[in-house]
Amino acid sequence: MDLLKSSPANLCPLTPITFLERSATVYGDCTSLVYNSTTYTWSETYRRCLQLASSIASLGITRLQLVSVLAPNVPAMYELQFAIPMAGAVVNNINTRLDARTISVLLRHGESELVFVDFRLRSLLMEAMSLYPTGDRRPILVLITEDGASPSLNARFHATHEELVKSGDPGFEWAHPETEWDPLTLNYTSGTTSSPKGVVHSHRGVFITTLDSLMDWSVPKQPTFLWTLPMFHSSGWNFIWGMAAVGGTNICLPKFEPPVAYAAIEKHNVTHMCGAPVVLNMLSTAPNAKPLKNPVHILTGGSPPPAGLLLRMEELGFVVTHGYGLTEVGGMVVSCAWKSKWNKLPATERARLKTRQGVRTLAMTDVDVVDPVLGLSVKRDGLTMGEIVFKGGCIMLGYLKDPKGTAECIKENGWLYSGDVGVMHPDGYLEIKDRSKDIIITGGENVSSVEVESVLYTHTAVNETAVVARPDDFWGETPCAFVSLKGDIAATPTEKDMIEYCRERLPHYMVPKTVVFMEELPKTATGKIQKFSLRKIAKGMGVSPVSRL
Amino acid sequence: MDLLKSSPANLCPLTPITFLERSATVYGDCTSLVYNSTTYTWSETYRRCLQLASSIASLGITRLQLVSVLAPNVPAMYELQFAIPMAGAVVNNINTRLDARTISVLLRHGESELVFVDFRLRSLLMEAMSLYPTGDRRPILVLITEDGASPSLNARFHATHEELVKSGDPGFEWAHPETEWDPLTLNYTSGTTSSPKGVVHSHRGVFITTLDSLMDWSVPKQPTFLWTLPMFHSSGWNFIWGMAAVGGTNICLPKFEPPVAYAAIEKHNVTHMCGAPVVLNMLSTAPNAKPLKNPVHILTGGSPPPAGLLLRMEELGFVVTHGYGLTEVGGMVVSCAWKSKWNKLPATERARLKTRQGVRTLAMTDVDVVDPVLGLSVKRDGLTMGEIVFKGGCIMLGYLKDPKGTAECIKENGWLYSGDVGVMHPDGYLEIKDRSKDIIITGGENVSSVEVESVLYTHTAVNETAVVARPDDFWGETPCAFVSLKGDIAATPTEKDMIEYCRERLPHYMVPKTVVFMEELPKTATGKIQKFSLRKIAKGMGVSPVSRL
Repeated sequence: MDLLKSSPANLCPLTPITFLERSATVYGDCTSLVYNSTTYTWSETYRRCLQLASSIASLGITRLQLVSVLAPNVPAMYELQFAIPMAGAVVNNINTRLDARTISVLLRHGESELVFVDFRLRSLLMEAMSLYPTGDRRPILVLITEDGASPSLNARFHATHEELVKSGDPGFEWAHPETEWDPLTLNYTSGTTSSPKGVVHSHRGVFITTLDSLMDWSVPKQPTFLWTLPMFHSSGWNFIWGMAAVGGTNICLPKFEPPVAYAAIEKHNVTHMCGAPVVLNMLSTAPNAKPLKNPVHILTGGSPPPAGLLLRMEELGFVVTHGYGLTEVGGMVVSCAWKSKWNKLPATERARLKTRQGVRTLAMTDVDVVDPVLGLSVKRDGLTMGEIVFKGGCIMLGYLKDPKGTAECIKENGWLYSGDVGVMHPDGYLEIKDRSKDIIITGGENVSSVEVESVLYTHTAVNETAVVARPDDFWGETPCAFVSLKGDIAATPTEKDMIEYCRERLPHYMVPKTVVFMEELPKTATGKIQKFSLRKIAKGMGVSPVSRL
Repeated sequence: MDLLKSSPANLCPLTPITFLERSATVYGDCTSLVYNSTTYTWSETYRRCLQLASSIASLGITRLQLVSVLAPNVPAMYELQFAIPMAGAVVNNINTRLDARTISVLLRHGESELVFVDFRLRSLLMEAMSLYPTGDRRPILVLITEDGASPSLNARFHATHEELVKSGDPGFEWAHPETEWDPLTLNYTSGTTSSPKGVVHSHRGVFITTLDSLMDWSVPKQPTFLWTLPMFHSSGWNFIWGMAAVGGTNICLPKFEPPVAYAAIEKHNVTHMCGAPVVLNMLSTAPNAKPLKNPVHILTGGSPPPAGLLLRMEELGFVVTHGYGLTEVGGMVVSCAWKSKWNKLPATERARLKTRQGVRTLAMTDVDVVDPVLGLSVKRDGLTMGEIVFKGGCIMLGYLKDPKGTAECIKENGWLYSGDVGVMHPDGYLEIKDRSKDIIITGGENVSSVEVESVLYTHTAVNETAVVARPDDFWGETPCAFVSLKGDIAATPTEKDMIEYCRERLPHYMVPKTVVFMEELPKTATGKIQKFSLRKIAKGMGVSPVSRL
């Protein structure tokens, strides 16, 4: 029995790229993508991706090199997720909300050879390019233009996306991964610019998590999917690949605005969409929010959704599924699996149950809450707190160029430590009780408190500082800075001064919305700042005034 | 980028056993299994499997040893599929339609250490045991009794199944596979008794194909599944594991009888079932066949279903999905993926399209029809015939103790050769045109023509013989023997004599239903019997008279 081993027939690498190939056969005539007046079928999308891959390869991009994309949810963004790996390269999506400095750091960290940029973000990228140190080799640039427009390219751009599609070979033999452990994506999650956290996932991992998410959310064949979640967020929670798997129709919107989203839902008969709680909040409070004609399935995650919000969404006719995951674990790997007996409960109780993160998805091997000292499972009492840990086929290969960071996250005992604090309920459902120490999640974006602190520390008046999350009805959380000032300063800065100072040096969403000055920050006996106390204070301040996106 | 490798956190083996563990949490209170007056929940099934696994381990069964099951679709049969691997062993399902001689050969070939046998098949197994050569070590025997009955066990039986459950430890730590390539199942497919074809599948392979089949058939959460397909057939086309994955309710019937099946459909609100075309035929022609109250999804495969049959099933309210696979490829890996535009076609045209085997499922890497000489893809013209070949993660590890047979099937070029002849249509859908040279599929069972021929050759009057498939409205195909007799025989045997002769030496379903005497069998220039010509003659004879099961 133990003489039987794997063979070339079954060792062929698992990869989500084959989903697209199959869709061209099964759903060839069906709509793959709609954007303004542009519509493609699955056979067209497949052909365009082959052409694009052929052009990328022609530019000299070779196996495992990095190709970056800085774009909102436009057709080119979708195509590139397939075309880049089909050329053998690794696809790197850049968060469009970052500032030029951070983008420049990430592009250099990943050694990006080629960057696709949407015309809306052209000047942001140009600024990032200008921050490359003299002598550093710059990537080739390709401009993504709007529907068929052919703008005059300046010398910095090699071509437009559409030109690359047109000039490519539709008969291109795409580059299958050599093994299923070959890297497929690089998505940067929060982390300081001095040590960026570049999460690398393999073809195998993405294949597994894509099928897993489709199964968990019970996505039928040929759904109509509205892109309200940025595709750059953990590859759109893998629904980029997922829509190719089920032959769905991708409705692309470059920007999320509730009235536009509602209009798209009605026009295209949208069946599925995803979004962080902030998106749900905007949908539920939009002026044109009214009960939907047909139910729309919405998957939320990224931060815990308040029960009241879930209730409002249900009233509007959204069918909410709540999932939990991290970029590091490849997507949604815990979900609040719904029990039919819960349907008999009152709406408020249903909403409360749905705020719990839930149980591991089918393809995950194990998810647990462990005692930080002993590493043993905590009591299943819904009270004892511990760190949430993961084990499963879709966990990242690691952080790029950061073996130390990888080793701190994926421990030798075979578990990935999330940094999130949770409890395990008696029924086996887990619930997050406290965010990871250093992460603030604002509007679905991760903000590293360390990164904000490092900027504040450059201010000449700052003695000590600590940044924590302040609850916010709209954003979920916002960064709140506690600052003690030096004794010998000429002028005492105001809250507004500090915010202005940060705004010049950080992406907008990372800037503290609140600054609290203190005589001295609370410390432990060993002199460490007690962030836990500060978080309590921030919570006690109540929710910050509602602000718009 | 290439420094990033797999780690213990993502290398944890893919295995379908974890589906059961999860169902105990998510669907703990929901019904897992119904059989007569017996009903279990998923938490009960999980606990019973742990207890059973603990008892199996206590019997001294260790990692990768073989445990066999000879049983119809009863609860114990379902439980053993999980409990045996949870003890670290490999599960071997024995086709209950085999005769004692064959069963004895298979048990010895696999070196079965422990055999579970249903009380209905007790004497068959005892006969198989009596055929063990003196001195050969015999397996431990466990008897599966009916609901709670405790019959007097003779000395040959160690215990009853229920006793093993009761005495087992529900806190047993089940044996996770060491790698995902560890063998999980051994299912014997057709093959001569002198060289049994024991197909071994890994945990990884079964994990992949289970999710794949659920996705392909769009099985929702918590379906009600009627077991009309024998669980011993390729692990019930993986829906043994599949039902644990989606928390379905397994309705068990020890024997397929249309009136009983119709009654179960109505009583339990069955939503899903599987069966070979012969099962569909019996359902559609049953005296109590009448349009269903609610649609029932039925997956068919094993042999090509006639268009007329598909049409009749649709009229009754069955929603038919047609798939294709082999035990060797792990289940249904090609399916006639339905296009919505086909719904507008007339019913007969719809049925005709549905008889095509279709396209590869999502998780398969590739399926092709290749030229037997050059090995290149045939023209996509629906006319050019070639051999159907497979590549994908769920392909078998190989045939047990048969490296030569494995190498003939899984070629060095990384493809598994099915032996089936097909065409590729212009739309990328494949269709079987001729059965594998040596296999006759009768009532969903594979019959090796070589095996039947070898029995005929032992008849003193037979000079030459060749067995081929004859089309049959009821069974799909039946074995048809062409025989040339020796010149110097005392008495000329009749067709009835030959059938009687085979009946004494072969399982009932393998016995030729037709025997044709010929002066000389048609030969090629090199003296090989032209089976192709004989198949033509058998076809020309028309369908054989309908016989009952």
